[in-house]
Amino acid sequence: MTHAILRVRCADRTGIIAGLSDFVFRHGGNILDLDQHADADTGRFSMRLVWSLDRFTLDAESIRLALQVYARSFGLEWELDFSNRRDRVAVFCSKEPHCLYDLLLRQRLGELAGDIVLVVSNHADARPAADYFGLPFVVVPVAPGDKAAAEARQQALLEEYRIDLVVLARYMQILSPAFVGRWAGRVINIHHSFLPAFAGARPYHQARERGVKLIGATAHYATADLDEGPIIEQDVVRVSHRDTVPDLVRQGRDLERQVLARAVRLHLQRRVLIEGRRTVIFG
Amino acid sequence: MTHAILRVRCADRTGIIAGLSDFVFRHGGNILDLDQHADADTGRFSMRLVWSLDRFTLDAESIRLALQVYARSFGLEWELDFSNRRDRVAVFCSKEPHCLYDLLLRQRLGELAGDIVLVVSNHADARPAADYFGLPFVVVPVAPGDKAAAEARQQALLEEYRIDLVVLARYMQILSPAFVGRWAGRVINIHHSFLPAFAGARPYHQARERGVKLIGATAHYATADLDEGPIIEQDVVRVSHRDTVPDLVRQGRDLERQVLARAVRLHLQRRVLIEGRRTVIFG
Amino acid sequence: MTHAILRVRCADRTGIIAGLSDFVFRHGGNILDLDQHADADTGRFSMRLVWSLDRFTLDAESIRLALQVYARSFGLEWELDFSNRRDRVAVFCSKEPHCLYDLLLRQRLGELAGDIVLVVSNHADARPAADYFGLPFVVVPVAPGDKAAAEARQQALLEEYRIDLVVLARYMQILSPAFVGRWAGRVINIHHSFLPAFAGARPYHQARERGVKLIGATAHYATADLDEGPIIEQDVVRVSHRDTVPDLVRQGRDLERQVLARAVRLHLQRRVLIEGRRTVIFG
Amino acid sequence: MTHAILRVRCADRTGIIAGLSDFVFRHGGNILDLDQHADADTGRFSMRLVWSLDRFTLDAESIRLALQVYARSFGLEWELDFSNRRDRVAVFCSKEPHCLYDLLLRQRLGELAGDIVLVVSNHADARPAADYFGLPFVVVPVAPGDKAAAEARQQALLEEYRIDLVVLARYMQILSPAFVGRWAGRVINIHHSFLPAFAGARPYHQARERGVKLIGATAHYATADLDEGPIIEQDVVRVSHRDTVPDLVRQGRDLERQVLARAVRLHLQRRVLIEGRRTVIFG
Repeated sequence: MTHAILRVRCADRTGIIAGLSDFVFRHGGNILDLDQHADADTGRFSMRLVWSLDRFTLDAESIRLALQVYARSFGLEWELDFSNRRDRVAVFCSKEPHCLYDLLLRQRLGELAGDIVLVVSNHADARPAADYFGLPFVVVPVAPGDKAAAEARQQALLEEYRIDLVVLARYMQILSPAFVGRWAGRVINIHHSFLPAFAGARPYHQARERGVKLIGATAHYATADLDEGPIIEQDVVRVSHRDTVPDLVRQGRDLERQVLARAVRLHLQRRVLIEGRRTVIFG
Repeated sequence: MTHAILRVRCADRTGIIAGLSDFVFRHGGNILDLDQHADADTGRFSMRLVWSLDRFTLDAESIRLALQVYARSFGLEWELDFSNRRDRVAVFCSKEPHCLYDLLLRQRLGELAGDIVLVVSNHADARPAADYFGLPFVVVPVAPGDKAAAEARQQALLEEYRIDLVVLARYMQILSPAFVGRWAGRVINIHHSFLPAFAGARPYHQARERGVKLIGATAHYATADLDEGPIIEQDVVRVSHRDTVPDLVRQGRDLERQVLARAVRLHLQRRVLIEGRRTVIFG
Repeated sequence: MTHAILRVRCADRTGIIAGLSDFVFRHGGNILDLDQHADADTGRFSMRLVWSLDRFTLDAESIRLALQVYARSFGLEWELDFSNRRDRVAVFCSKEPHCLYDLLLRQRLGELAGDIVLVVSNHADARPAADYFGLPFVVVPVAPGDKAAAEARQQALLEEYRIDLVVLARYMQILSPAFVGRWAGRVINIHHSFLPAFAGARPYHQARERGVKLIGATAHYATADLDEGPIIEQDVVRVSHRDTVPDLVRQGRDLERQVLARAVRLHLQRRVLIEGRRTVIFG
Repeated sequence: MTHAILRVRCADRTGIIAGLSDFVFRHGGNILDLDQHADADTGRFSMRLVWSLDRFTLDAESIRLALQVYARSFGLEWELDFSNRRDRVAVFCSKEPHCLYDLLLRQRLGELAGDIVLVVSNHADARPAADYFGLPFVVVPVAPGDKAAAEARQQALLEEYRIDLVVLARYMQILSPAFVGRWAGRVINIHHSFLPAFAGARPYHQARERGVKLIGATAHYATADLDEGPIIEQDVVRVSHRDTVPDLVRQGRDLERQVLARAVRLHLQRRVLIEGRRTVIFG
């Protein structure tokens, strides 16, 4: 059974829910899930609407045409997806393999709502893991001072594999603003701290130094402003004065992989909407 | 500004959301919040719909008439509330005052969406607290073997004070099935364990005995089956072998008051719907 | 039954535990609790040792003399307390009463290991609460540009009431470095964010603006560097895009009072040791 | 650098800590970690003592002899381990591979304090995972009505591989009381509920049916009483009415693997002591 998944946003006004739910009903659709949010501070409306296409009388093209009409009348921005069209995902990693492994295992367990089809790294270390899970693995070295060449190669790979989403699974290179801009809203990064605390390098060292009682991890969309992109998911774990930096690293690994996996899953299920510096997460 | 808050439930079928959101729109209402749930297992549909009455063209009586029509066509069960009509709440307590205090403090801080107007206890201990917060306090002793007399007195008080909701804030008497039945869905109890674990008496002793690493608290609607009513909210806290029963009691007190307060707040905001043995919580 | 509670710290070396536990044993003491920490990074040793004085053959003065000998031989710094000597606590608050109420309630429930004996505020709002709990309440207004006069009055009060610990329970005035320095390690503040994130003013507004998925609270010792003092306790709660600033404030209040209460309790039980910018918490 | 790790337990009495710490000191050892617990309810004392053997003047045999003396004088039961002697671990699994994968990944990341050297299953499904991580994989089918033959084969394997610890990583067969008795305190099981809630089969179905707001996982030592063994570690995750049984299963998988991994790590670090139906966990 195929579903249509519609995400919309606009300035809040009356009649949007009635109009769109009526549209679905009149054409034979059954609403499976509707989640909306009217932000009292910003006056913005956002909604995610999922309906069954089992007996729906319009095809994809007709839905799109109809949405263009609503877009004009309501000032809607919209994104339409179908549940039988799964995102193609590339994972970028460096030497630390725990987030990569975790994503590959979840793919095998059927937990993701998309398909990892490519692994890219600036090192060869993760090749056996990609091999084991039967995925192409491409090393794209990043020479000091020549990030542009590496990013051109990466861009070519993403096009070749028709990638929809890039997941930075502890990828230790900073992507250029140009690259990030081209992939806006389609690159998810995991930062190993509870942002905005301990942005920048070596957050576990910073955490140990400051003597915090909790450490965290943050999954966010990559933007040109490092560690400043819209946050998708965060979590923390309790630590103590007994924990050395390696202890924090070990405990942080568990957090990082879970937080990243949850964020990737939310994105692939079309449950995330970016609104300025923030995200709306449809539950 | 007044809102209408509508909760509905029925067998799932197409057109309910469209029908009700169109109804709101046609009469000048602006939907502020819509949360729905179609349960794939049970085939049941439930929804909470909040709209502004600022420019709404129908009065309460007309809304009720219209809902009766929808009820017939969709097989809807419905409850309609208005945000300017706040529930009147009675708190029942015994000797332990922490949950009572907590609720009274939250009332003063404006955190509840209803009004505590009466405190009932089988002991006089909590009178100073009720006095301090300016609330009537009535002692209704429960003589062994004569619960009926006590419950008759309690029932009379609830009627006299036009009570909508009874909160059992560590009230250590078991209410009769008759009483609970008369107040079905309108009595919230706090149990000091993570139900269904450690149902019955002395749960902290049981928890210590069993050596669990977390203790919990559960807020639920009271039913004739003790500790079996629909769960509204639960939470846990980490404990260790070092914690004696008094330590568990102390840590549990923090949990109990928070879990109970959250459940009461959810109920008063009309965010809870009972479906059989379970609840649907509209977020 | 009275216990002795000894906290020590020094450069790590062999024989400290053996020496001190032998000292307790030889004089008839029974060790009730021993918790130690040797920090591999800093080479510092710290320990908390609790023993029963039931059959102990030395009096307080003799223990202190003996500790002076150990201090010389091991380079120990030490603090000795007795369980029958409870700290006298002053709570400073402003207009928001939730942390004050919470501490007073816990005092009544017997949860604290010290005694709140004084409430000081720059506003009169909290007087009824202090009255209800039978505590002296003193308004010390802080005139713009004349903090010195206010602090002189506060200092006089703290001396008059022989205060051991000052708890800033949402006290909205910044204490001068001189005052904080005089009370180093004896002033606990609650900050309404997960420090070091959102230091400074209006942290809930900052959190909302940044779109974080968790908000936090931090209890720390006050130092001359605002929001930089050694952290005693922290915790977080999950929030979402739906939460407005007032929602965050309400949820934060629960966190603040719990985190502050836990920190105060740890301090009063002599379970905290300050080591530079950090704390060691003896569990 | 090698450490000695001593765990002791006995009826509480004075002089044990002094005696043992003095023993370590006199023979040139440096105490790295000492954690003790005197249980006020049971009158039992337990302690974990770790010291460096760098300059220790006694060999293992001499330490054992000395401990026998202390055992007589104090009624001590003791276990002595050395940090360079790592436990050999066998993992038992069935068809669900997530806990197995997780343990193997942690082994590769160096997170465990022991070595998985064997994987046993009643199905062939997990062979590729074992192969990938370079571990022997043995299928031991369990024929209905002939568990004895399977357990004889398992016992032989455990002896052949000189196994110290068996981890039941979602192994769906019930081990006989005889087998469990032979391996008392050396078999760790993961149960997919917050025990004692939802003991027995299909706990996620039970949880969904009961409408709980949190689901949990419990790692415990296997005993002849199913789901009743001493609990090592537990944790929970928040769920809602929206979560179907497959959703609970997916979220539970994350919990199960973390809770099991933490329990295994604690055991391998010699941080667990069984006291009757409960465990003491040395932090």
